[in-house]
Amino acid sequence: MTYDPHTFQGLTWHDAVPAFAEERDTPRAYLERCLETIAEKEPTVRAFVVQDGAFARSHADASAARWKAGRPLSPIDGMPIGIKDLIETKDFPTQMGCAAYAGNFPRRDSAMIQALKQAGTIILGKTVTTELGQSEPGPTTNPWDATRTPGGSSSGTAAAVAAGMVPAAIGTQVGGSIIRPAAFCGNIALKPTQGGIHRGERQGSSQSTAGVHANSYEDMWQVGIEIASRTGGDPGMLGLMGPMTPPQPVRPERLAVLETEGWGQMRDSEREAFEALLERIRKLGVPVLRRADHPWIEALERIAAQGKAVTNAVVGFENRWGLLNLEETHPGGMSARAVARLRISEALSVQDYRAALAVREEMRAAMARVAPLVDALIAPASPGIAPVWDPTAPDAARNPRPTGDVACNAATSAMGTPCVTLPVLAVDGMPFGVQLVGQMHQDARVTAMARWLHASL
Amino acid sequence: MTYDPHTFQGLTWHDAVPAFAEERDTPRAYLERCLETIAEKEPTVRAFVVQDGAFARSHADASAARWKAGRPLSPIDGMPIGIKDLIETKDFPTQMGCAAYAGNFPRRDSAMIQALKQAGTIILGKTVTTELGQSEPGPTTNPWDATRTPGGSSSGTAAAVAAGMVPAAIGTQVGGSIIRPAAFCGNIALKPTQGGIHRGERQGSSQSTAGVHANSYEDMWQVGIEIASRTGGDPGMLGLMGPMTPPQPVRPERLAVLETEGWGQMRDSEREAFEALLERIRKLGVPVLRRADHPWIEALERIAAQGKAVTNAVVGFENRWGLLNLEETHPGGMSARAVARLRISEALSVQDYRAALAVREEMRAAMARVAPLVDALIAPASPGIAPVWDPTAPDAARNPRPTGDVACNAATSAMGTPCVTLPVLAVDGMPFGVQLVGQMHQDARVTAMARWLHASL
Repeated sequence: MTYDPHTFQGLTWHDAVPAFAEERDTPRAYLERCLETIAEKEPTVRAFVVQDGAFARSHADASAARWKAGRPLSPIDGMPIGIKDLIETKDFPTQMGCAAYAGNFPRRDSAMIQALKQAGTIILGKTVTTELGQSEPGPTTNPWDATRTPGGSSSGTAAAVAAGMVPAAIGTQVGGSIIRPAAFCGNIALKPTQGGIHRGERQGSSQSTAGVHANSYEDMWQVGIEIASRTGGDPGMLGLMGPMTPPQPVRPERLAVLETEGWGQMRDSEREAFEALLERIRKLGVPVLRRADHPWIEALERIAAQGKAVTNAVVGFENRWGLLNLEETHPGGMSARAVARLRISEALSVQDYRAALAVREEMRAAMARVAPLVDALIAPASPGIAPVWDPTAPDAARNPRPTGDVACNAATSAMGTPCVTLPVLAVDGMPFGVQLVGQMHQDARVTAMARWLHASL
Repeated sequence: MTYDPHTFQGLTWHDAVPAFAEERDTPRAYLERCLETIAEKEPTVRAFVVQDGAFARSHADASAARWKAGRPLSPIDGMPIGIKDLIETKDFPTQMGCAAYAGNFPRRDSAMIQALKQAGTIILGKTVTTELGQSEPGPTTNPWDATRTPGGSSSGTAAAVAAGMVPAAIGTQVGGSIIRPAAFCGNIALKPTQGGIHRGERQGSSQSTAGVHANSYEDMWQVGIEIASRTGGDPGMLGLMGPMTPPQPVRPERLAVLETEGWGQMRDSEREAFEALLERIRKLGVPVLRRADHPWIEALERIAAQGKAVTNAVVGFENRWGLLNLEETHPGGMSARAVARLRISEALSVQDYRAALAVREEMRAAMARVAPLVDALIAPASPGIAPVWDPTAPDAARNPRPTGDVACNAATSAMGTPCVTLPVLAVDGMPFGVQLVGQMHQDARVTAMARWLHASL
């Protein structure tokens, strides 16, 4: 398949809803179409660790009855949704792509799952994650080219949405695990402001965020706000706030490019595609500043260049307590890649960690400083299209980044700012996503500007 | 037993250390003395859920060898320590005082336990917690009067230290669960700045803190700093910082009383004891302001009066996701008290939660505002001495606060400020603790001032 952002129309939910109210369609029939797509594409895409059609059908019938009675629980009542397999679900095991967690089935629903069920959504199954959300990939392939990675760690989430198996799915990001796979698969995705969507039992990282992949801004926003309006954000955080319906498109007054560490990694064709996009935005009358245009943007770029170093130190130090336990309780239960990473993180001292936190605070301050200059920052969502990944290749074990590089995402992850992926570019027939990055808690505004840009381009 | 703060000398560790280096004593012999005390007192006090002498002896022998070789892992190498049974330990089950967790044994060490082991301490056993750290009491009695509560939720932690079973033990506080039991049992205790000591798997509350009970400021500080210098604080937090040896006594320049909601609950004898203490402090040349002396102190009192309401809303909302899962996976596995509390918290909306968070922010701002006025605040650590608690009394089930009232602690818990309990008063032959409350991250300074006050009084 060749991807063309101008012609591709993925599976959406919001525009199916009027037919439910008018009884021209039902959530059950919608589900059946999803299951047909899964039956057709899953043997190649392998987005799901586990899914349960019978479980989903009974819930879809209950949803159909609510729509028929005119009493849906929310606008996403009946929506089939995929859940990244890092998140605990009562009805499915939670195996985290890790041998140590094979068969792990605590029969608990994470806070966000409780909220999604209260909103009437149908948990269709668990989507493939890289091992523990780190770098060891699962079996998922990119729906646009099975020789390429779908990105990670939210591999199955991104692929299931791109393949039209579900209209939306939940992902999580510590370094780039929502935004990059969306870029590789051609999805629309929201990584909310840090803490925006309650992470339930997964509070051990100060830099992970739960977010939403979808094929429309409407579905993306609705899923996020339905969760946050029930659970709030992480403990002590306000959580995602904004309208209970999708934000209407808003024209940005001014943007700036955020090059990040990924800029130098792009190929010429990718850089040219991004520069051409900037030209089209300028022709829409929206100025786009560059780092040379203002010292505060230059200062932001300079500190953003520490994004990967900060993320590696913070995440490595924070994860090691849990990983040391896992190594002891399940000898041989982690991949060589994960063990190697744990050994590196063991060398970090609390002083190293505190130093990384301090740089992270400086990154956040540098980001906040540009608020009066521009409404949002625009950047490639990945340093290029999805790389080819062949786990059987002789050098596969030595590839440090089988699901791609976090270079375009580590800084914005560390800054905790909201990011939205816009699938508006293609290179070599593959999606090449762009991201819009806003100030903290401006998730709704970034979504509104992303809608405007996408519709205008 | 009648408690007298002038004559009582509890079991300490720091002053035993020179004898280890000089081979006049060994950690094994120290442990044996602890085990003798436990054998004598535990049938009445019931501080431990589980303890393991053989396990402790083998570790004490290893520690003794390190001291003999002149290579102790830290100044608390060999210290027998109790761990509140909310915290996961590889070597003991973690049953949380809750039937639903009976036999729960995940064989993982929480981050702080990993740190304590790296420092060479000996995990002697798990100390009794109220059910899930809430209000349903365990079997522990007050070592000074077995008809009275030791306080909660860190009941066993407080009682084990007061009874001389261990020189230090770990507790946790969401509302008042470190400071109040220390007040009731006559301990020295530190509730650090929010996030000061890494809570490991227990990150679901934005208001809980891990802390230390001891019989000396030296041991209290050393345990805290040995943990935090290895793990840092909670994810994303700097954690407890300060000297690697106990802070030397420092004279406060000026104090102010913090009355809190608990003021009106005290009996005349308790209020008179506290007022007499203030007079003694003034005679030492340290002015003690009252709420009438400055509008910012009055403003702090007014907002601190919302401490219990804020704590109930924040904690109720944050705990409910986990408790709903527990109720479903373990029907009948929670006490009637816990279920009633869950039902109340289910009525809270995310707007209620956000409103409580906003008041909490205002409380923190009101506290920060008095920083230029006074070095610390002084307050009763509980609204009186430990109440009598008879679980067989006909009205026991209707007693809403079997382990005492959080009225003196909820505000400072919500504010996230460091608190140190000073055992300097007695009423009716029972301990009546006083607390010193400092500004965020001034844990070492508060400890230093507490030392000076305690030594001077």
